[in-house]
Amino acid sequence: MRGLTAYRAEEPRPDLVKLDANESPFPLTERLRQELLRSLEHVAVNRYPDPKADRLRSVLAVEHGVGAGQLVLGNGSDELIQLLLLAIGRPGDTVLAPVPTFSMYELIARAQGLRFEGASLGPGFEPDLPGMIDMIERVRPRAVFLATPNNPTGGVFSEAEILKILAASPGLVVVDEAYGAYAGRTMLPHLVEQERLVILRTLSKVGLAGMRVGYVVTHPSLAAELEKVRLPFNVSAFSQAAAVVLLRHREWIDANVREIVRERARVMDRLTALIGVEPFPSEANFVLFRTRLPADRVFEALLAEGVLVRNLGSASGLKDCLRVTIGTAEENERFLEGLTELMRQFEGCEVRGGMKKTEIG
Amino acid sequence: MRGLTAYRAEEPRPDLVKLDANESPFPLTERLRQELLRSLEHVAVNRYPDPKADRLRSVLAVEHGVGAGQLVLGNGSDELIQLLLLAIGRPGDTVLAPVPTFSMYELIARAQGLRFEGASLGPGFEPDLPGMIDMIERVRPRAVFLATPNNPTGGVFSEAEILKILAASPGLVVVDEAYGAYAGRTMLPHLVEQERLVILRTLSKVGLAGMRVGYVVTHPSLAAELEKVRLPFNVSAFSQAAAVVLLRHREWIDANVREIVRERARVMDRLTALIGVEPFPSEANFVLFRTRLPADRVFEALLAEGVLVRNLGSASGLKDCLRVTIGTAEENERFLEGLTELMRQFEGCEVRGGMKKTEIG
Repeated sequence: MRGLTAYRAEEPRPDLVKLDANESPFPLTERLRQELLRSLEHVAVNRYPDPKADRLRSVLAVEHGVGAGQLVLGNGSDELIQLLLLAIGRPGDTVLAPVPTFSMYELIARAQGLRFEGASLGPGFEPDLPGMIDMIERVRPRAVFLATPNNPTGGVFSEAEILKILAASPGLVVVDEAYGAYAGRTMLPHLVEQERLVILRTLSKVGLAGMRVGYVVTHPSLAAELEKVRLPFNVSAFSQAAAVVLLRHREWIDANVREIVRERARVMDRLTALIGVEPFPSEANFVLFRTRLPADRVFEALLAEGVLVRNLGSASGLKDCLRVTIGTAEENERFLEGLTELMRQFEGCEVRGGMKKTEIG
Repeated sequence: MRGLTAYRAEEPRPDLVKLDANESPFPLTERLRQELLRSLEHVAVNRYPDPKADRLRSVLAVEHGVGAGQLVLGNGSDELIQLLLLAIGRPGDTVLAPVPTFSMYELIARAQGLRFEGASLGPGFEPDLPGMIDMIERVRPRAVFLATPNNPTGGVFSEAEILKILAASPGLVVVDEAYGAYAGRTMLPHLVEQERLVILRTLSKVGLAGMRVGYVVTHPSLAAELEKVRLPFNVSAFSQAAAVVLLRHREWIDANVREIVRERARVMDRLTALIGVEPFPSEANFVLFRTRLPADRVFEALLAEGVLVRNLGSASGLKDCLRVTIGTAEENERFLEGLTELMRQFEGCEVRGGMKKTEIG
């Protein structure tokens, strides 16, 4: 354990434009908030939550057109990654994921004494399918984790690519669709014919991060195995109630998703136009970009302007990279203005430096 | 995994007097409920919870006179048992607990591929210290779990007994004080000199079961190791807020605890007076009792009267045993009347049966 470093999450700072955690920027509407509070008023806080979360599971089952017996709920996706590995992992097993990716796959696997192998994405973070399949055949992973869209790169695996990975894999393929709503993609229709396919979803990225509700959709027999390891009261009474209320307002979630997708296109255009900034294509609610300045300097300059992004400069394979969550139009504007100003100063220095050089030379 | 049986918890049935889950029978007062709802109104549900739960941790630190760095929060004690074993357990390790005890120690240990050894309590479920210390010396457990008061038996380990177990143990001794409030006992003062002592607490038994807030109090260095494995957002924003509000009303919690302790004495007296019923001494908010009737029959008869208790008749070492949670005076009365009537019928039959025999003979 001493070899592990605790996962570090930024502390909330209400004065900042918070574009670091891939949250939805939209608070509940007043009507939704009132509906939620009315629902919470009826929760008996002195009683344990429904251990099976039957009401929430049936809402989710209807939403996705699956059986309630195919759903396993968790206290956020994190707990479900842990649960999956507890249920299927044996000492010496390997977990594989394309890298860079969501850090919790490796952290949780290692915390359970499992091996972790990363299969490198391409230079633009696009899938390297032959490389990945080679590695799968070599290390025979008990589970492959595919975040699609991938965090922090924003790229996706196509349906055809995922099916090839499934065909090559001896164990489970966990398709983490945490950001699936922003891509308009899902592997759900393939559950029928793919017994080793596990789909991971969460309400955290579409407006309910504070409540911690994630879920697995998979084959009923695997779901039953996961239920044996799941802690009985892992989703609190308030979280169950809040999720049921939120899911009654799918039109609100969908409108917010469309707004973020529109803003993502605008942010992407602006970043592409900036000299010294290379954004990577994203189907998620964030954009990864590389700058000609050190990431630390960009991070600090944006922070000084009151904009918090995720500095990934010290992460493996992500030198000079930062990740910005798509916020409201106003929040994005503050980020874009801050970055534009910084890059302008930098270009100015470079140009002036170049002129000086010419003058001297 | 296939060898494990999923933990089974009763489904909520609002028509029943619910004395099966060791919950507090007291809902929030109207004033407290309003205060809680006001606090929840300010929670940004679209944002992740504070990953360090600093506010709640500092409230708990002040309450217990420990440093915030000695506290690790969990989504209920269950998650903390899992976290402790993930942090310290290695393949082949053994976890030991006196049995019968809380089933999650064994379930969670086995789910992680650890061995579990049970050290039998005495015939009246009293601690068998020599037997336990022998076993500790023999199996060298990585962790000993001591629930005190013990669930489902209600008995306690004295301070001196726990210190002897600590002295004999090569690894951690986890003192689960889930029911500590009802016993007026705690090992907290011993944390200073005992580096291998871990204290587990929860708000579930004192009025907040629906929120899932448990915590570990231990040495700062072990707490730091646990933090490395803890999932960053494991306590939801609502649960953090609710716990802070509840802990502001310690006088309300304490008054409820005193009421349960008074009722426990009354229930115990009545059970002791019942022919065919043997209650075991309890310092918790429940009483275990053995009956001369099969536990299934008692369970069903009480259920027919609208009283739900925990049927433990099929659990190892608990033949003909049931556990009743201490509820409100009115709830306890319904339980006592139901059980008294059942035992009266049974005694009547037995007496008539005896008389018949005599008549025939």
